Amino acid sequence: MKELQTVLKKRFAIEFADKNLLETAFTHTSYANEHRLLKISHNERLEFLGDAVLQLLISEYLYKKYPKKPEGDLSKLRAMIVREESLAGFARDCQFDQFIKLGKGEEKSGGRNRDTILGDAFEAFLGALLLDKDVVRVKEFIYQVMIPKVEAGDFEMITDYKTHLQELLQVNGDVDIRYQVTSEMGPAHDKVFDVEVLVEGKSIGKGQGRSKKLAEQEAAKNAVEKGLNSCI
Amino acid sequence: MKELQTVLKKRFAIEFADKNLLETAFTHTSYANEHRLLKISHNERLEFLGDAVLQLLISEYLYKKYPKKPEGDLSKLRAMIVREESLAGFARDCQFDQFIKLGKGEEKSGGRNRDTILGDAFEAFLGALLLDKDVVRVKEFIYQVMIPKVEAGDFEMITDYKTHLQELLQVNGDVDIRYQVTSEMGPAHDKVFDVEVLVEGKSIGKGQGRSKKLAEQEAAKNAVEKGLNSCI
Repeated sequence: MKELQTVLKKRFAIEFADKNLLETAFTHTSYANEHRLLKISHNERLEFLGDAVLQLLISEYLYKKYPKKPEGDLSKLRAMIVREESLAGFARDCQFDQFIKLGKGEEKSGGRNRDTILGDAFEAFLGALLLDKDVVRVKEFIYQVMIPKVEAGDFEMITDYKTHLQELLQVNGDVDIRYQVTSEMGPAHDKVFDVEVLVEGKSIGKGQGRSKKLAEQEAAKNAVEKGLNSCI
Repeated sequence: MKELQTVLKKRFAIEFADKNLLETAFTHTSYANEHRLLKISHNERLEFLGDAVLQLLISEYLYKKYPKKPEGDLSKLRAMIVREESLAGFARDCQFDQFIKLGKGEEKSGGRNRDTILGDAFEAFLGALLLDKDVVRVKEFIYQVMIPKVEAGDFEMITDYKTHLQELLQVNGDVDIRYQVTSEMGPAHDKVFDVEVLVEGKSIGKGQGRSKKLAEQEAAKNAVEKGLNSCI
């Protein structure tokens, strides 16, 4: 916990008045369950709160950033930014993965690198920050950590390459596009997938990722980048 | 709009700096569509924002109010409070139904009393208030309008009577519980339903409501209140 406090102070100028709150935000249910007699709080309630403050701040950001986009587009963008995989990435960027308290079983099975656990801890941290400080401080943190990546367009890409590829290919009518897993490596909690995208049965792009979805996106991206014309 | 401003000032001490924002919050898509050439904004984007600020404030309220409830219970409670029917009720309490700008078709078919339209306008108003003022002012408004009803227990009831009745009845094993609409009165946009709850084919409670769901809840409540033992 000392080390976490140092990281927060150094990188984000955040000092918690209530250290217990901070500790709770980083305590996974598996740890609390293992130490049931000590009645340790876990981070689920804080995650509930953090999720809500995150939704609001991202909604407000998107509302102002895109004055012309209809509500449906804003919702989609928000969903991409606040989804588990994205939040897990932010948690890693902040080194939060090092400080989560896990039960032994969860630790052994690779929980420290699991997107759900990381994303939940990230949200719980936001909830704790809201309670310890206020919504303005949470906003500052989000503008330090998340918004620069959003502005860099990291989130428009993630789900867009598959759609983009489809749009490019279907200009001349319907085309058969398939994604095929060519290999799956690593233990259950730390898999890497290789995926190929096939157009009319012919491979036009390859990608690798931690989930099938991400690998498919990479494959689509690869196909788009190689230039479609040379392939079909 | 003048009249709306008067109501807001008198009842809630709210004065909008940006009157256009307030007007947008009360403009339904059907109105904007009918006056397409005037390029009038409708309230969908504000509703997106208002929904998020409402979720946060209710989450924070519930988190502090119930320090022992697990996240799942908080989520359920929140869902009950912010669902369409509830928000439509709050909109009516605030006289917002009088001020919504509707298209002619929507007006004719009773849109002014439709829960979706009223709930959306309520959320849009919260979004506009957030932009014109800040989250603290939205919180004050919610504490003026919503929290007193929440504290009075209005929301724990709504979805609970059917479950409660079921739990009471099924103590001695499975029992056949059915809800039956006995009459439907009034025009399409202003229906009233009568519902009976039947246990093993025998009526044990009656209820009336603006929707089948609400009438069922009332019927279940009626059955519970009459005392089950005398009926079975």
